[in-house]
Amino acid sequence: MPPSEHSLRRLRLAAGLAGEKLDALIVSALPNIRYLTGFTGSNALLLVHPDTAILFTDPRYAIQAAEETDCRLRIARGPLPNLLLSILKRKPVKTVGFEKSRIPYDLWESLDKDLPSRTRLKPAVGLVEQLRAVKSPIEIASIRRSVEILCQAFAAALPTIRHGIREFELAAELDHQMRLLGADQPAFETIVASGPRSALPHARPTSKTLDYNELLLMDMGAHHAGFASDMTRMAFLGRPSPQASLLVGAVRQAQAAAVASVRPGVKASAVDRTARDVLKTAGLDRLFTHSTGHGLGLEVHESPRIGKREKTPLQAGMVVTIEPGVYMKGFGGVRIEDTVLVTETGCEVLTTTPKELLEI
Amino acid sequence: MPPSEHSLRRLRLAAGLAGEKLDALIVSALPNIRYLTGFTGSNALLLVHPDTAILFTDPRYAIQAAEETDCRLRIARGPLPNLLLSILKRKPVKTVGFEKSRIPYDLWESLDKDLPSRTRLKPAVGLVEQLRAVKSPIEIASIRRSVEILCQAFAAALPTIRHGIREFELAAELDHQMRLLGADQPAFETIVASGPRSALPHARPTSKTLDYNELLLMDMGAHHAGFASDMTRMAFLGRPSPQASLLVGAVRQAQAAAVASVRPGVKASAVDRTARDVLKTAGLDRLFTHSTGHGLGLEVHESPRIGKREKTPLQAGMVVTIEPGVYMKGFGGVRIEDTVLVTETGCEVLTTTPKELLEI
Repeated sequence: MPPSEHSLRRLRLAAGLAGEKLDALIVSALPNIRYLTGFTGSNALLLVHPDTAILFTDPRYAIQAAEETDCRLRIARGPLPNLLLSILKRKPVKTVGFEKSRIPYDLWESLDKDLPSRTRLKPAVGLVEQLRAVKSPIEIASIRRSVEILCQAFAAALPTIRHGIREFELAAELDHQMRLLGADQPAFETIVASGPRSALPHARPTSKTLDYNELLLMDMGAHHAGFASDMTRMAFLGRPSPQASLLVGAVRQAQAAAVASVRPGVKASAVDRTARDVLKTAGLDRLFTHSTGHGLGLEVHESPRIGKREKTPLQAGMVVTIEPGVYMKGFGGVRIEDTVLVTETGCEVLTTTPKELLEI
Repeated sequence: MPPSEHSLRRLRLAAGLAGEKLDALIVSALPNIRYLTGFTGSNALLLVHPDTAILFTDPRYAIQAAEETDCRLRIARGPLPNLLLSILKRKPVKTVGFEKSRIPYDLWESLDKDLPSRTRLKPAVGLVEQLRAVKSPIEIASIRRSVEILCQAFAAALPTIRHGIREFELAAELDHQMRLLGADQPAFETIVASGPRSALPHARPTSKTLDYNELLLMDMGAHHAGFASDMTRMAFLGRPSPQASLLVGAVRQAQAAAVASVRPGVKASAVDRTARDVLKTAGLDRLFTHSTGHGLGLEVHESPRIGKREKTPLQAGMVVTIEPGVYMKGFGGVRIEDTVLVTETGCEVLTTTPKELLEI
């Protein structure tokens, strides 16, 4: 039997531990645990050691964990850290890493206070996230399918976009279409924001109705086989006002320029800069209040961040969003977002939905 | 203008700080921040001091935060802890609490390393959660509405439950009905598990079809105005087998006995014990692998846990689930769950959906 995708990922992680001066790593972030083992439950710890990996969970997940993972499994009747420490005591481990940005303080404390005397805990940052940033062909296929589902769901929901419909009704329809097309679930709370509410970059859908002569922003994502997609599109009910057309035009230009700059070796910050420069020329850069994009995979936000301060060079196999936006308080906001795969020679925009302002 | 619900909650929290020997509290758990301020964004810290409360968030949420909250607001261009510390330096604060079970290690570290020399950080546990456990009339009304939406959504989705439908299609229909009835979103990933898959207490819906002569478990919740509901019901396609009837009968008895034991002053562990004892009499207690229930409110799992080791006495205003279950590997599982309000004299089962095994 060939080694599983999960076991290959664990081997890759274990192979990198020595370089970090670690004898083992305690993985506490659930998406990292899913990546390394396939386990999808809500309570687990994973001990990764060059010889072995052991997944700890509780009795609710005993059957499920055995089905989902091919690594060693221990079911804890009490707190997971206690069982993990009792196993750790039997291993010649001096330095064990912990995920310092993804472990609650009290979990760290319960590991720290009963640690075997010869062992010490060492903060580790982004070891699994770094592996996750570059996607394997299987992972890319899952993301591709997730993007496809999203584009199809958007097309299927188009007839719902009309005057008088409430924001939450449209959001519900987008989500329902994703699910019927096979998405596990929406990747995040779908944003449907109309009129001045579109100026809130993370608006929740409300019972406000879609009205004429207003911008409409829709930001949605699907999860498929665990992998996310993410897309934002704009519509206008009626004939677009000059102000709306101007904002959409500027954001489309910024988005296209940023996408065109995506290729291996380019720093994430340079892609962000490209979008920002276009909006600066249009005099709109001060209204662009967030980063240009983010990596996506098992989580909808992961490495690399496409932001001002992110020096990471892009690599083939990374999948990122490109989503500049401008937000005018009281008037509305415009954001256009695609999911983009970094290829050997440049990039491929996975999102196929047309980007122009949809006139309804 | 009368004080807002949020400002009353902050006053109540601030009034309790001295008793904990705290001059201030840094709140990092987002549901706690929402409870105290109304802010629904994904990035925030809250500093609560007897004189004042200050909410810190980033520019993406500048407009939204100003709309949602009535407390002081600071928008951080850089990391939130830096701005919080710069404010803390100006206050005569000696001991400041942090939420040790709900703060990532690295956030604690960034607060700790730049703390003013006269100030120290002190772990605090459950201060806000304790307030949240007892619901106000406004909160109870929101939960009541959330339960109502859930029961109506279940009734509306009933015709979908039939032979040949896939688990994920039924889950999508349940979620869609909730949303159309006004739920913000499902409170968690809806569980639809049929046949042997119902033996997984936290199964994800798959593309398995609903078949004759199988148990079907549906566990779902709605969020309304931020507040959760939670219900599990069982169905059987065809005439229930003796084995299925026996399990359902035992779980119904256990659930009814546990509900009947809910009243102010009774320890949470006693309610758990009641359910466990009934299943023990039926020889099924070893198949009951989780707690009898949990509090619910802004989160779907909150204090108090209705479990073996939870000595907390129930109080009027608490809202909990009562959900014993038994799981037979290879055959299937049965769980029956209601959302229950603790009243002055006993309890009120908020869930109105009939509990008998639904024969389809």
